[in-house]
Amino acid sequence: MEQTAQTPPLSDTLPDDDTGSQRIRTNFMSDNVGPVCPEILAAITAANTGDAPAHGDDAWTARLEARVSEVFEAEVRVFPVATGTAANGLALTALTPPWGAILCDESSHIFRRECGAPEFFTSGAKLCPIPSAEGRMHTDLLSRTIADLQAGGRRLSRPSALSLSQASEWGTVYTIEQLVELTTLAHDAGMGVHMDGARFGNALAHLGCSPADATWRAGVDILSLGATKSGALAAEMVITFDTTLAEDMERRIKRAGHLWSKQRFISAQILAWLENDLWLHNARQANEMAGRLARGLLRHPAATLPFDTQANEVFAILPELLVQGLEAAGYVFLRRTAPPGVEGTLVRFVTSYDTQPADIDALLEALASIE
Amino acid sequence: MEQTAQTPPLSDTLPDDDTGSQRIRTNFMSDNVGPVCPEILAAITAANTGDAPAHGDDAWTARLEARVSEVFEAEVRVFPVATGTAANGLALTALTPPWGAILCDESSHIFRRECGAPEFFTSGAKLCPIPSAEGRMHTDLLSRTIADLQAGGRRLSRPSALSLSQASEWGTVYTIEQLVELTTLAHDAGMGVHMDGARFGNALAHLGCSPADATWRAGVDILSLGATKSGALAAEMVITFDTTLAEDMERRIKRAGHLWSKQRFISAQILAWLENDLWLHNARQANEMAGRLARGLLRHPAATLPFDTQANEVFAILPELLVQGLEAAGYVFLRRTAPPGVEGTLVRFVTSYDTQPADIDALLEALASIE
Amino acid sequence: MEQTAQTPPLSDTLPDDDTGSQRIRTNFMSDNVGPVCPEILAAITAANTGDAPAHGDDAWTARLEARVSEVFEAEVRVFPVATGTAANGLALTALTPPWGAILCDESSHIFRRECGAPEFFTSGAKLCPIPSAEGRMHTDLLSRTIADLQAGGRRLSRPSALSLSQASEWGTVYTIEQLVELTTLAHDAGMGVHMDGARFGNALAHLGCSPADATWRAGVDILSLGATKSGALAAEMVITFDTTLAEDMERRIKRAGHLWSKQRFISAQILAWLENDLWLHNARQANEMAGRLARGLLRHPAATLPFDTQANEVFAILPELLVQGLEAAGYVFLRRTAPPGVEGTLVRFVTSYDTQPADIDALLEALASIE
Amino acid sequence: MEQTAQTPPLSDTLPDDDTGSQRIRTNFMSDNVGPVCPEILAAITAANTGDAPAHGDDAWTARLEARVSEVFEAEVRVFPVATGTAANGLALTALTPPWGAILCDESSHIFRRECGAPEFFTSGAKLCPIPSAEGRMHTDLLSRTIADLQAGGRRLSRPSALSLSQASEWGTVYTIEQLVELTTLAHDAGMGVHMDGARFGNALAHLGCSPADATWRAGVDILSLGATKSGALAAEMVITFDTTLAEDMERRIKRAGHLWSKQRFISAQILAWLENDLWLHNARQANEMAGRLARGLLRHPAATLPFDTQANEVFAILPELLVQGLEAAGYVFLRRTAPPGVEGTLVRFVTSYDTQPADIDALLEALASIE
Repeated sequence: MEQTAQTPPLSDTLPDDDTGSQRIRTNFMSDNVGPVCPEILAAITAANTGDAPAHGDDAWTARLEARVSEVFEAEVRVFPVATGTAANGLALTALTPPWGAILCDESSHIFRRECGAPEFFTSGAKLCPIPSAEGRMHTDLLSRTIADLQAGGRRLSRPSALSLSQASEWGTVYTIEQLVELTTLAHDAGMGVHMDGARFGNALAHLGCSPADATWRAGVDILSLGATKSGALAAEMVITFDTTLAEDMERRIKRAGHLWSKQRFISAQILAWLENDLWLHNARQANEMAGRLARGLLRHPAATLPFDTQANEVFAILPELLVQGLEAAGYVFLRRTAPPGVEGTLVRFVTSYDTQPADIDALLEALASIE
Repeated sequence: MEQTAQTPPLSDTLPDDDTGSQRIRTNFMSDNVGPVCPEILAAITAANTGDAPAHGDDAWTARLEARVSEVFEAEVRVFPVATGTAANGLALTALTPPWGAILCDESSHIFRRECGAPEFFTSGAKLCPIPSAEGRMHTDLLSRTIADLQAGGRRLSRPSALSLSQASEWGTVYTIEQLVELTTLAHDAGMGVHMDGARFGNALAHLGCSPADATWRAGVDILSLGATKSGALAAEMVITFDTTLAEDMERRIKRAGHLWSKQRFISAQILAWLENDLWLHNARQANEMAGRLARGLLRHPAATLPFDTQANEVFAILPELLVQGLEAAGYVFLRRTAPPGVEGTLVRFVTSYDTQPADIDALLEALASIE
Repeated sequence: MEQTAQTPPLSDTLPDDDTGSQRIRTNFMSDNVGPVCPEILAAITAANTGDAPAHGDDAWTARLEARVSEVFEAEVRVFPVATGTAANGLALTALTPPWGAILCDESSHIFRRECGAPEFFTSGAKLCPIPSAEGRMHTDLLSRTIADLQAGGRRLSRPSALSLSQASEWGTVYTIEQLVELTTLAHDAGMGVHMDGARFGNALAHLGCSPADATWRAGVDILSLGATKSGALAAEMVITFDTTLAEDMERRIKRAGHLWSKQRFISAQILAWLENDLWLHNARQANEMAGRLARGLLRHPAATLPFDTQANEVFAILPELLVQGLEAAGYVFLRRTAPPGVEGTLVRFVTSYDTQPADIDALLEALASIE
Repeated sequence: MEQTAQTPPLSDTLPDDDTGSQRIRTNFMSDNVGPVCPEILAAITAANTGDAPAHGDDAWTARLEARVSEVFEAEVRVFPVATGTAANGLALTALTPPWGAILCDESSHIFRRECGAPEFFTSGAKLCPIPSAEGRMHTDLLSRTIADLQAGGRRLSRPSALSLSQASEWGTVYTIEQLVELTTLAHDAGMGVHMDGARFGNALAHLGCSPADATWRAGVDILSLGATKSGALAAEMVITFDTTLAEDMERRIKRAGHLWSKQRFISAQILAWLENDLWLHNARQANEMAGRLARGLLRHPAATLPFDTQANEVFAILPELLVQGLEAAGYVFLRRTAPPGVEGTLVRFVTSYDTQPADIDALLEALASIE
């Protein structure tokens, strides 16, 4: 589905010109193509001092749970790992036995983009994709899927976990009310609720509420929270709001090869990311740039935006010729086949913590100049 | 089996004194408690420039295979991951189906210290531990285990993989001749050969031969090569000498959550580690310090060394009172119960790329001063 | 989804009356509620003589492959097991690695009704359900799903297996031409083709072609063939047309606990089932009774049949009051919620090798008499 | 390890002679080579009447739990399956998560003879084999293994299950006192206790105590109880004494393909096997024949019996020439290489519920007549 460059260039940015002006970003493939945020790199360097106990017994990791508990206004357990796919997989193992079912949106990363990682981590739990229009699950379809599984009784997979992506894969954000409706349904059916928060910061910046309101107060039991797309080198975490879900998590992390011996270097990234609300600052910047891009695209006569731009992903349907023009101009972004019946090509632009207005304007200008 | 500090100290090194003299290392728990080597941290910082395609399509990763192929004098495939447990697990999936058997030394990390990771990665392959005196498998016992499985025919696990640890878990190193005997037996039985090279550099420094001689020329099909214990932040790799073993490896890496989105930051570490033979330089330093410690311990009237010190791990049997004295003096190291019939406590000291002669001498002096 | 009786009655048939007349079947829940066919029970009894080597080394099993090869006009391998869920799961392990994807119809038994067995047997392969109107997969949707996975390249699940149910879960039967189109697509994409033949005999009876034409000549690589629903006590089998798929199958069977020590008693059932075309005779009888029922229902003014009745399952949409009336009259059958927008209740009646015209007529009469 | 006949004979019994005398059994390979007990075959035939709800909702299965509860003087849950390997694997899933460890005797069937089934059923739990002299685990070695795992803390597999084989794989039987010591250790460490009772009846016949005394009163939490080796066609069961262990067991059974649609035919076998203490009668007969054989072998000047014959398996070390002589005389039995340092060949003879004194005497006579 994704198309990537065939030959790996040393850098995807345009070369500096003679006048020393700022580089212009042309790579909108994802929010993980950019560099590490200076504050976070500095924290890695600062942590590189003396010896430290391995495997998470270090002082940085020791500070992590207090810090995250403060941010989320709750006594949480925090498990840092290097990738979002691992965080999702590990979180799901806390909610479902191998003979359980995970209910998720049809567009979800866990169902579509993780090469079977949830099946792997959970030792074969069953993923039940639920269709939706724009990445946000509908209450009635969730309700029906639960009912179908329950009617099968003790000979069908136990409905165990509901997984919601916030922000969603189509760049939309659940409202708190939508979350509460869905999580209530899940809890009433004896299921636990996972939130895939690879872009949780972006969703939070959109909602403008507290981290607690957007998670455990809305019925989320366990959260995969991602920092990598928001300026970290490699830092994601599983956060449990129900601490019984934390039992044996470290064994599962070790068993999956996700326990770093020098774990201080993940924990230090996360501490820096949370320091002075850097994470929210980064999210807001990315969201604003996405908004700028969306508004610009809406002004283009040939562009259609199929979804609201609520986080840092902009989806647009463009005539194929325009898409090729942008590519010819050096722009990098994701292409997808448009849905049946739609003319044109569906493309995705992702903005990042370090995207600048000039980057967006240059992109819009490039688009406008294609004949 | 391992005992670790209860409260995580900020640093395990002694404080600087007023005279500005060098810190003295007191932490000999493992070679992963130390900091990142300056050259490697510099490489991470240098890689933090501009955008780069995600998921290994970056320029650093693109250089990696050519570089490692050069080092190993063979066309290899290289798959960088963050931990040794992941590298081992992923390598084993290339050799065994879920219904196969992995033959390994009873002392091996994959059998004893990985919390079931090989069973997890291989979806339940059977580990068959083979007893040995000192971490190096005996040809006759390997031969017998293979024969037993083969006699069970199509109703017992297929003997699929032989896994050898080089250096071994008891700090010993297989000779090339020993390797060849074992790998020949395995190949004759239709098995593939994995080498757990978490401390391969140290073994190589001991052997004094080429990387090629110590691996594929000696019958190794796939290698887990570790840089983390030798100065990296988090960098290990799976190297396939038989490239058919590389098929679908990237899918298994993604599925296990071990594909970094910003992979340039692992690859850059490895490139720096191989640059100017830094890896061998680091290994030699650690080995020399282990040798210095071993010689010192042998001079102590109450110490016994149960194994040859061939890499960077020193095992000693000490009277319990001496062990407690060292701990009281602030030293950190691994304790194990001595084997039945042996008086005293079995302890392990691990030296590192940045261990200095003064560290060793201080340790020996501390030991000598215990009454 | 299924509703079953709460208290287990000793028998679901009506009691004999004094006049010695035939029992009338009232249980149409499935074709597995009936007794074992006399010929098959006789074969079990006949096999109970003297000692026989265990685990499939017996004389009955030895005859099995020759017999099935004859029936399918090909050199096949045959692996008898006790349940269809096991046969499906084991067959799929021959086509997909744990990191592969299995493409199947959304209605398929492997996706909906096996409690995650395919995920279990394949160690977590990804099931990709493809929507269809009536249980028969559409070529264009298969084609699109394959393209999506291939576009994701080496970071998405490898499309490995196509699984087709013949007869389908909605009682329809693929034509040979439809099969060939689908299996060609799959083979062109490097996938293998599995057929879930729990009711293959019924499909064959409908098609009126040879077993070879309906399987390997139409591109099927591996078949789960079920006898239990067609008169056996517990006898299903995996049949490989591509014998390379048979490698290590016995290890997988043993490892899943599906290797009977007294295997002669499965093999003897299958031999009897194939003897004198008993299997086809039984299938024809069941199909004819389903046809009789379908024709009867079509004559009822309030009944609608959403699918063609091509095998031995009849689906009907009935007013809820009629459904309750049938239940009150002692009839047992499956109920499902009707699709959105449809008035009434969707019910399923399954006929069996021993269903008689009088059973059907009594059912229709009972329906007609409900006011 | 096992050697079996190359060509499958129709029957392993000697032909009747002209005088109509009884057949003499020559197959001592295992207690699963014999036919089904007449009472059990009659029960299967009797169950073949009318329709019955599928998947265990039948009247036979409904009676099973009450019957077994009576036999074991406890409220148990009973789950019938077709093979002992499945019963063991399913029972273990109730005790260990995938990241747990199963401690078992090195000689145990689950470790040596099941092709990785415990790893498969438990999704990769770690098997920790503990050496013993004669199939009965030693308390001190169990204690040490538990301590080792616990010392590794949250980064090593959780010690979850203790599995004991009763009778053991070397034909010995744990005393009640031995069981209590081992199960107490396990419970104190937070582990659950599984008993592999493939030959539990034989052990019980040896102990002469009640089923309750030999299981839950001695600390067993879950039992695999086998009937197949004792006269059934294919009938084993998982019995939970702690009913919380039964949760979701049916889902695991279905998911493993072990839920028979016509389950009445397993349940009926078990009911017949328990009727009138048939199971104990069969076990006693087999044990007595083993004792008769053991006593006879002890009288032979060249035979040594390495283990006490306490159940229905006789192990003997015989000169290789005698072993070949017996084989030449048509006898079938298991051969193993004798342990290092022992002259001769280790052979195993298994007696069965239908072995007769004349069979034993003929075997001893055949042995005596070899020159």
